[in-house]
Amino acid sequence: MGNEGLLISLEGIDGCGKSSLIAYLNTKLDPKRLVNIREPGGTVLSEYIRDILLDNESNYNMTAETEALLYAAARSQVVSQVIKPALLQGKVVLADRFIDSTIAYQGYGRGLDLAYLEAMNNFCTGGLKPHLTILLDLEPEQSYSSRKTQAPDRIEREGIDFQKRVRRGYLELAAAEPHRITIINAAQEFNIVSGLALAQVQRVINEQHLKLLGDRPMEQP
Amino acid sequence: MGNEGLLISLEGIDGCGKSSLIAYLNTKLDPKRLVNIREPGGTVLSEYIRDILLDNESNYNMTAETEALLYAAARSQVVSQVIKPALLQGKVVLADRFIDSTIAYQGYGRGLDLAYLEAMNNFCTGGLKPHLTILLDLEPEQSYSSRKTQAPDRIEREGIDFQKRVRRGYLELAAAEPHRITIINAAQEFNIVSGLALAQVQRVINEQHLKLLGDRPMEQP
Repeated sequence: MGNEGLLISLEGIDGCGKSSLIAYLNTKLDPKRLVNIREPGGTVLSEYIRDILLDNESNYNMTAETEALLYAAARSQVVSQVIKPALLQGKVVLADRFIDSTIAYQGYGRGLDLAYLEAMNNFCTGGLKPHLTILLDLEPEQSYSSRKTQAPDRIEREGIDFQKRVRRGYLELAAAEPHRITIINAAQEFNIVSGLALAQVQRVINEQHLKLLGDRPMEQP
Repeated sequence: MGNEGLLISLEGIDGCGKSSLIAYLNTKLDPKRLVNIREPGGTVLSEYIRDILLDNESNYNMTAETEALLYAAARSQVVSQVIKPALLQGKVVLADRFIDSTIAYQGYGRGLDLAYLEAMNNFCTGGLKPHLTILLDLEPEQSYSSRKTQAPDRIEREGIDFQKRVRRGYLELAAAEPHRITIINAAQEFNIVSGLALAQVQRVINEQHLKLLGDRPMEQP
């Protein structure tokens, strides 16, 4: 009757290896208990917003503020329609990006007001934070060398200085919330990165399990 | 070389007569100096967001937070691409709804946090406020009797209690900023309403003109 699930987010600069790690974790976790989401997206409306945000073709001249607000709009929708219902069913939600991306990308990357962005995160999630955030840390130079062949999206086109500011944002977030955010050096071999990540995921699953056991009365023999 | 324009917004509950008043003001103001916008909308991206917000058909289950964030996203875009450039050219921008709609509809109407919404308004406009806001005040019962035949959009379907809360929000905003927000009783005959509104518009145009005259050195004969 575990009715409290787990929200685990994966964060990092573009090309840090999140997708591979998520694919790996999907092979290791109970598929009946697992819900995957990626930001922006996850509901009809959020995917519609995703199309706007990642559209390379249309020349929207999108302001940094509009971008931040659209990410938050998509997030509010997926929190309400997918994440909260899944947590109530005791599921493990694996989120490819969440609130920290807003602070790192729109705050540190684009220079928008950090205090406002934090208030916006709180507004669009109703205060929900991940139980665990895995930050795949990589120097932008290393990320770029690994993915030259892919076509860049709107954010990736910002270049290496942008990614450096984003990385610094992530590291400052991790320093401010060390209990929630675990840093994994993503320059290591994948089997090391994935092993460290899985250990962290197992840790919070076990902690949650123990907490749920502690919450209910001992069964009589 | 008046390089400071005027932003004039029109506000009020649904069915208060804004559209008729805007059409009237368009016949009275210099078309070369006038820019009309309606919210949400006014840029390619903002109109795209408008389609989402006013879509009756799709069952998005949109959260109140998502709604507020989408309005703000559309507003940031139109402020940056249309309103600010027009003001720099000394134009008069007539806005069918602006920041006060967010407070009245999403704050008072839907019960979202007023302090956050105010911060969001400030974020998406860069602090820009209208020089004049005309509030067409009407009791919701009077508005409904005048427009029974039209198909309601998503917000209009909320019903009369919702419109009553919105109206109360507008009146509180007007009480807090009496210099910016002028209340006109929209239950009066249209020629009275339009005459009062035009007088207010003329007043701010004259004040602006005098201010600009005062700002520049007297011309030598």
